[in-house]
Amino acid sequence: MKSKEVVLTGDRPTGPLHLGHYVGSLCNRIQLQNEYDQYVMIADVQAMTDNYDNPGKVRENVLEVMADYLAVGIDPAKTTIFIQSMIPEIAELTIFYLNLVTVSRLQRNPTVKTEIKQKGMEKSIPAGFFMYPVSQAADITIVKGTLIPVGEDQLPMIEQTNEIIRSFNRLYKTDIFQEVKALVPKVGRLSGLDGQAKMSKSLKNAIYLGESEDDLKKHVMSMFTDPGHIRVADPGKVEGNIVFEYLDTFGNDLTKIQELKDHYQRGGLGDVVLKKYLLEVLNEKLTPIRERRAELMTDKAELMNLLLKGTNKTREIAAQTLKEVKTALCLDY
Amino acid sequence: MKSKEVVLTGDRPTGPLHLGHYVGSLCNRIQLQNEYDQYVMIADVQAMTDNYDNPGKVRENVLEVMADYLAVGIDPAKTTIFIQSMIPEIAELTIFYLNLVTVSRLQRNPTVKTEIKQKGMEKSIPAGFFMYPVSQAADITIVKGTLIPVGEDQLPMIEQTNEIIRSFNRLYKTDIFQEVKALVPKVGRLSGLDGQAKMSKSLKNAIYLGESEDDLKKHVMSMFTDPGHIRVADPGKVEGNIVFEYLDTFGNDLTKIQELKDHYQRGGLGDVVLKKYLLEVLNEKLTPIRERRAELMTDKAELMNLLLKGTNKTREIAAQTLKEVKTALCLDY
Repeated sequence: MKSKEVVLTGDRPTGPLHLGHYVGSLCNRIQLQNEYDQYVMIADVQAMTDNYDNPGKVRENVLEVMADYLAVGIDPAKTTIFIQSMIPEIAELTIFYLNLVTVSRLQRNPTVKTEIKQKGMEKSIPAGFFMYPVSQAADITIVKGTLIPVGEDQLPMIEQTNEIIRSFNRLYKTDIFQEVKALVPKVGRLSGLDGQAKMSKSLKNAIYLGESEDDLKKHVMSMFTDPGHIRVADPGKVEGNIVFEYLDTFGNDLTKIQELKDHYQRGGLGDVVLKKYLLEVLNEKLTPIRERRAELMTDKAELMNLLLKGTNKTREIAAQTLKEVKTALCLDY
Repeated sequence: MKSKEVVLTGDRPTGPLHLGHYVGSLCNRIQLQNEYDQYVMIADVQAMTDNYDNPGKVRENVLEVMADYLAVGIDPAKTTIFIQSMIPEIAELTIFYLNLVTVSRLQRNPTVKTEIKQKGMEKSIPAGFFMYPVSQAADITIVKGTLIPVGEDQLPMIEQTNEIIRSFNRLYKTDIFQEVKALVPKVGRLSGLDGQAKMSKSLKNAIYLGESEDDLKKHVMSMFTDPGHIRVADPGKVEGNIVFEYLDTFGNDLTKIQELKDHYQRGGLGDVVLKKYLLEVLNEKLTPIRERRAELMTDKAELMNLLLKGTNKTREIAAQTLKEVKTALCLDY
């Protein structure tokens, strides 16, 4: 029997998912769906907060993300996958929550501060982006989520959600919402191909789950290794060498990986040989995902059907939650 | 035949309506409903932005306001009266509009700036209050309002709405919204009983449409006249004398009012005599309203029925508008 905890997580559909997502969240979800009542939201409304000038991009990636989910093994029979914009109750709840948060509190949110800097929006922050932590509190609580898988950098969002929940329960003398717990996964982030930062679509340093064998080969062959390892005979560094980071993450043959590390450090092991082995390891992992994904994308109507089924289920829960909220707010006409 | 303009107006249900509303907006609406397709919104969600800690007050005043509307002659057969919180499409549209307005633009809104000062919220502005101009743009456009009755002080709100409409139409290459026009009524504001400011519930200087004859008498007898007019024999001032302001506004017998003004200025006319005449004038105006209002309040279920009928009609229009919006945003799954 599943635990009573409700997991809410999701992705902004701004591009297909990559190995960074696989390591950072997808693998975790495949486990969580067996233990918990799990909701996965395709956050098209949130994606619009910084893609409002390109809604077509958001739309076309909804099914891409859905295909990624199913290809890696998120099972719609175990996980409720839904489209955010089709749950109007989230917008309604957001509007009520906005009364419980001050502008200066939002200005202090460290996650938002960092993202504003990253996106160069200091001078003109769209109000929608500015208040997205409030909208996230609504995403979580509309399904009465209690366990939220997040990275360390997202912990302030959980704190904001709990502040809203406490204010709501106190002001409206109710207990319809329980404070939520962050679930920070053990497996952390995956470096990008360039070794400069975590893998990210916007940094163009990503390996996509659905990319072709050719693209994968190009990507692996371009990977950052040890800039001091110039001739094959030179000793090379393992630390900071992205190829070894990936082998540690995706490889199963630990003995072989240790041998390669030793050989590389002694000198005499070329990058090309090393990368060819990583390519083998990644292909073993990605070929079934790539094939399942391609198969899924041949029937987009069916993919959308599955998504609408999860959305309808979520809508029922959301309507029930909003009913309770409106009763607490004396807006139950 | 009515014009094609769509009027959207409304009130925050934070108390029953008073003579200031009657002069400033209600009379205007009684005219407008014959010329235009008029929507009147009972803005319970907006009322929550600065009454979030007292939702009961908002709720209990919804029917009070509805009774005021019908008592003064707003006709539900000509005017669509609806409850804001029952139109979720407004919340959805607000969320999309928030992406089109920057935080700094909201900070510059003169109407919001003034209200923040008046309410002493400088240090802790609730985000919901801060962004209510965006929510107003959604209120207006969800019914495709084109003509908005506002006071001079509300003109910046209309400008904000038009900025959003222009951004929306430009970004999403659509023309579903037309820019709106402000309709600044000729009859302006009514001073409060104390003569210090405009009539306002929060300043406790108001005469309510439904108040008893006794309360009306007390209010009129306490009215601010000319502080220099101490003895009956003294000459008194007409300018700034609230009793004369009210006689000018509500009296029909212009000859008699002119005679009273002359007499008062010469001296020999006591405040009590003057106020008794105003009481007569106001009773003539308010007695039928008071009686109709009391009658309406005996059947709250019927009042609510009328309100739900208007709300359902609005909901249909709102759903159609949101459908067009979602098509423009590529969110039409």
